[in-house]
Amino acid sequence: MYDIMENVPEKTVKCLDLGFVTLVDVMPRLVPEDRKTADFAIVQAARVSYGDGTKTVNEDRGLIRYLMRHSHSTPLEMVEFKFHMKLPIFCARQIIRHRMVSVNEYSGRYSVMKDEFYFPDVNNLRLQSKTNKQGGDDKIEVDTAKDFLAYLDEACIKSYQTYTDYLDKGITREQARMILPLNLYTEWYWKIDLHNLFHFLGLRCDSHAQWETRVFAEAILSLIQPIVPVAVEAWNDYHDHRGAVKVTKLEMDAINRTFAGQTVKALDSDNKREQAEWIVKAARMGLVAE
Amino acid sequence: MYDIMENVPEKTVKCLDLGFVTLVDVMPRLVPEDRKTADFAIVQAARVSYGDGTKTVNEDRGLIRYLMRHSHSTPLEMVEFKFHMKLPIFCARQIIRHRMVSVNEYSGRYSVMKDEFYFPDVNNLRLQSKTNKQGGDDKIEVDTAKDFLAYLDEACIKSYQTYTDYLDKGITREQARMILPLNLYTEWYWKIDLHNLFHFLGLRCDSHAQWETRVFAEAILSLIQPIVPVAVEAWNDYHDHRGAVKVTKLEMDAINRTFAGQTVKALDSDNKREQAEWIVKAARMGLVAE
Amino acid sequence: MYDIMENVPEKTVKCLDLGFVTLVDVMPRLVPEDRKTADFAIVQAARVSYGDGTKTVNEDRGLIRYLMRHSHSTPLEMVEFKFHMKLPIFCARQIIRHRMVSVNEYSGRYSVMKDEFYFPDVNNLRLQSKTNKQGGDDKIEVDTAKDFLAYLDEACIKSYQTYTDYLDKGITREQARMILPLNLYTEWYWKIDLHNLFHFLGLRCDSHAQWETRVFAEAILSLIQPIVPVAVEAWNDYHDHRGAVKVTKLEMDAINRTFAGQTVKALDSDNKREQAEWIVKAARMGLVAE
Amino acid sequence: MYDIMENVPEKTVKCLDLGFVTLVDVMPRLVPEDRKTADFAIVQAARVSYGDGTKTVNEDRGLIRYLMRHSHSTPLEMVEFKFHMKLPIFCARQIIRHRMVSVNEYSGRYSVMKDEFYFPDVNNLRLQSKTNKQGGDDKIEVDTAKDFLAYLDEACIKSYQTYTDYLDKGITREQARMILPLNLYTEWYWKIDLHNLFHFLGLRCDSHAQWETRVFAEAILSLIQPIVPVAVEAWNDYHDHRGAVKVTKLEMDAINRTFAGQTVKALDSDNKREQAEWIVKAARMGLVAE
Repeated sequence: MYDIMENVPEKTVKCLDLGFVTLVDVMPRLVPEDRKTADFAIVQAARVSYGDGTKTVNEDRGLIRYLMRHSHSTPLEMVEFKFHMKLPIFCARQIIRHRMVSVNEYSGRYSVMKDEFYFPDVNNLRLQSKTNKQGGDDKIEVDTAKDFLAYLDEACIKSYQTYTDYLDKGITREQARMILPLNLYTEWYWKIDLHNLFHFLGLRCDSHAQWETRVFAEAILSLIQPIVPVAVEAWNDYHDHRGAVKVTKLEMDAINRTFAGQTVKALDSDNKREQAEWIVKAARMGLVAE
Repeated sequence: MYDIMENVPEKTVKCLDLGFVTLVDVMPRLVPEDRKTADFAIVQAARVSYGDGTKTVNEDRGLIRYLMRHSHSTPLEMVEFKFHMKLPIFCARQIIRHRMVSVNEYSGRYSVMKDEFYFPDVNNLRLQSKTNKQGGDDKIEVDTAKDFLAYLDEACIKSYQTYTDYLDKGITREQARMILPLNLYTEWYWKIDLHNLFHFLGLRCDSHAQWETRVFAEAILSLIQPIVPVAVEAWNDYHDHRGAVKVTKLEMDAINRTFAGQTVKALDSDNKREQAEWIVKAARMGLVAE
Repeated sequence: MYDIMENVPEKTVKCLDLGFVTLVDVMPRLVPEDRKTADFAIVQAARVSYGDGTKTVNEDRGLIRYLMRHSHSTPLEMVEFKFHMKLPIFCARQIIRHRMVSVNEYSGRYSVMKDEFYFPDVNNLRLQSKTNKQGGDDKIEVDTAKDFLAYLDEACIKSYQTYTDYLDKGITREQARMILPLNLYTEWYWKIDLHNLFHFLGLRCDSHAQWETRVFAEAILSLIQPIVPVAVEAWNDYHDHRGAVKVTKLEMDAINRTFAGQTVKALDSDNKREQAEWIVKAARMGLVAE
Repeated sequence: MYDIMENVPEKTVKCLDLGFVTLVDVMPRLVPEDRKTADFAIVQAARVSYGDGTKTVNEDRGLIRYLMRHSHSTPLEMVEFKFHMKLPIFCARQIIRHRMVSVNEYSGRYSVMKDEFYFPDVNNLRLQSKTNKQGGDDKIEVDTAKDFLAYLDEACIKSYQTYTDYLDKGITREQARMILPLNLYTEWYWKIDLHNLFHFLGLRCDSHAQWETRVFAEAILSLIQPIVPVAVEAWNDYHDHRGAVKVTKLEMDAINRTFAGQTVKALDSDNKREQAEWIVKAARMGLVAE
């Protein structure tokens, strides 16, 4: 048997300034010598459904791609990952919304929070987009960024000093922590199966995710890729937040009209945002507007 | 306030020979007089995220369609349905695999099972497809169908008679039932939120679902359509098991090559099944092979 | 039919200084005129299991108490509650750990956070317990409390001012918020079934829960009590975080030895904490140490 | 590192006549040489909450027992088990009701069901209890048992013969199977974490569970005991379906009154079943009725 963790020479990926993701464990941990990936656990479970026996590596790949293409997700649940993560609380609050996971978080009731805060890089403070209400991609001007970071630095020092002062004066940890800002780091063990992880990664590696959270999602993706390479490849080919594209009913209509007339036709919709989404998708298909 | 159940004059839809789906309850049950649909509960929750106030019916529709197009599914969880269903055990075994539901099933340990079995219509006995391992769409020849049904009728009478005989002789209900066949009817209360229901309906209204189970899924869809018409319309437009189509990365490549050359190009894949899926999808887009 | 919401004249309970819990909706909403509580939905579902028909109010009560005593929890899932809550982020972070709920939270990425922070009452700042690592029940001395609150007041004003200043300078909302402290208020819609709610209330109405979070749990309990009074009564009688007591195997041994000898015997355990727990439990049983 | 599977020399436990449970995998699979059990993964996660470092084996045991005694269940979710099981459909239908698991079941749509049916041992056919509506513990008389089994044998041969005949005549597998009885064997991969498994075992190792299902639960318990011996010991001491007893509020009152007067006092309840439950519990405590 082969220890799958050997596929990942560096089990810890640093994230942001003080954060990290560490791959702690995988199920299956020991895999057949002739496979050397954990993909086999997916087909092992799938073949119980189909009443099939062992097959070649290539047939395994075909089956995994078939499962992924047709959203037969239950065999993916048979692979499980456990991570140790350190991350800012505002990221943790986004990630905890994914419910089909097991979590043990550092407790600010039992323990004193550590003096660890996230300070963005001056090049990573972003300008609020007018069109994308969720965030923005452009950099803010350097002087504003520096001022903001100077404030942040001072405020974190001050709040942490006050926090420990009042702990010394006897106030409960559970109350004293309320003065600490949302860029405080927390840590947790986080355990999830591959089906739910792909769902998570689809949303959190996406360009619409907050960049700071995406950094953690990308770290996780880089850690699992050598463990289940065939499944990750299939996910990249077939998931509509990755290489695939979901074409709506209205867009299918427009495509049909386009093919007849050779120029991109508008959607049958009075929704401007939906029209704009279609133009982007049409360009990805090689359709060019007149 | 308006009782949303008034939108559904017939709360019970008969399914197969003895089965049914009854809409028992909905949350929200009482809705604003100026809305008269339960769609408003979706936007009510979504607007807490966006910090928005009340809007017009048309803005509500735009928001619901936006949520559905971008898989922002949590507001859909705010609508809840409760059904009472009677269905054959082999259907129940498929439907119970959907885990994010609440179920109370009739118990063959506490109670005597009723003398109710599913007998397919002679026109609904299907021929196993060679290509689709899951089932088949063609009818089996009438004589074979009649013979099968005659056997089934006799076997059910015999097994139910034996079941009650041995109950009279004192054998436990929990053991006596093991002789009853899988076409025995059971019943349950089944409660699910709209997000999980759309996932269920996407899979079980699909042509790949077993026809007998699809009958129940279609009945459920017909019952919820008047309750959340805007959400159902958006789901039909944007869900890839409905009017939308998921175009894979390989297919996107093929589309790009097609547009340049005007005839449908093959996928860059040596998988025959995947090629066949592409040909079907290309035809839906109006692309014609040379 | 009777609108169950009429049982709750005041749908909003204020919590802490600026927080609240509002009961938004219930399933079942409309209940039989001769029942006037939502308990009937529990027995309606339970009776499908038992194959029973309608019974009297008293038989309903007996059945609900039986279900609760024997942890037959699935019928409790048939009652669903929806709340609108405003609460400090450090409370929200505890409550979100309960996963079997639906949540839509106000988004600091889409929207500007409001200038609302939790300031504890001077009488509610607590002294860290030496024995209970989670918190403490004693008040901290008034001068320390006042100093802490003065700091908190100033820090919140300063951080919120800085937050809005930098929003004006164009920084993304998703980043600017990281300077805000954990006593910032957030709000959400929160939907949960009665089984999972009882589990939540068992933990969060408990004396080991953080007081600030317990305030919200108690508010929720006060809102559902008039909706499902029979179920709440049974829960109070049979849940081991309420009136019931879980007696461990070691304690059962000690009780048996006690009865023989008439004075409380020690546990057969070298664990001091476990011995201390037993002494408390024995006193609750009327057993008096020599 | 030590392969935890070595703790289980026989990975397969036979159940009933043709069924089995096989332990396929565990997370953690590789454990420290100085521990040789998977209990360490529980304390590893728990200590992230408490901000503690590594401790001795004895401190680990104390922590696990504390967690179990106080229902701090999240660290138990960090241990995961995967089983391969073959079981009769009527057992599978009970076990599938536990939703927090991952399952891949053999599909009667894709594959031909095997000629494998459960035949109870003649000594295991039970008499329906009058008081316990769920089942019974007494044996039925031998002649009735033999007759029942003779019928069952014949009916299974006949139904399986008919099933294969009609498959040969071309009927779909998904329909032909409906004639097969509920004692037909199915098989699946079944993956679950330790917290949810303890909940499952509490209910299904209990004397109220159907005996045939209990056989599978006991097999699972025997397989995990050498993997997490400390957790299993604690569960046996503290779970109220094992060595512990949940004493209701009414029973606490009766105990208090009993201690004053030295003879067992009745509950303050007019419910006969509840009184009977109390008499049994009082006897377990060494309290003797006058």
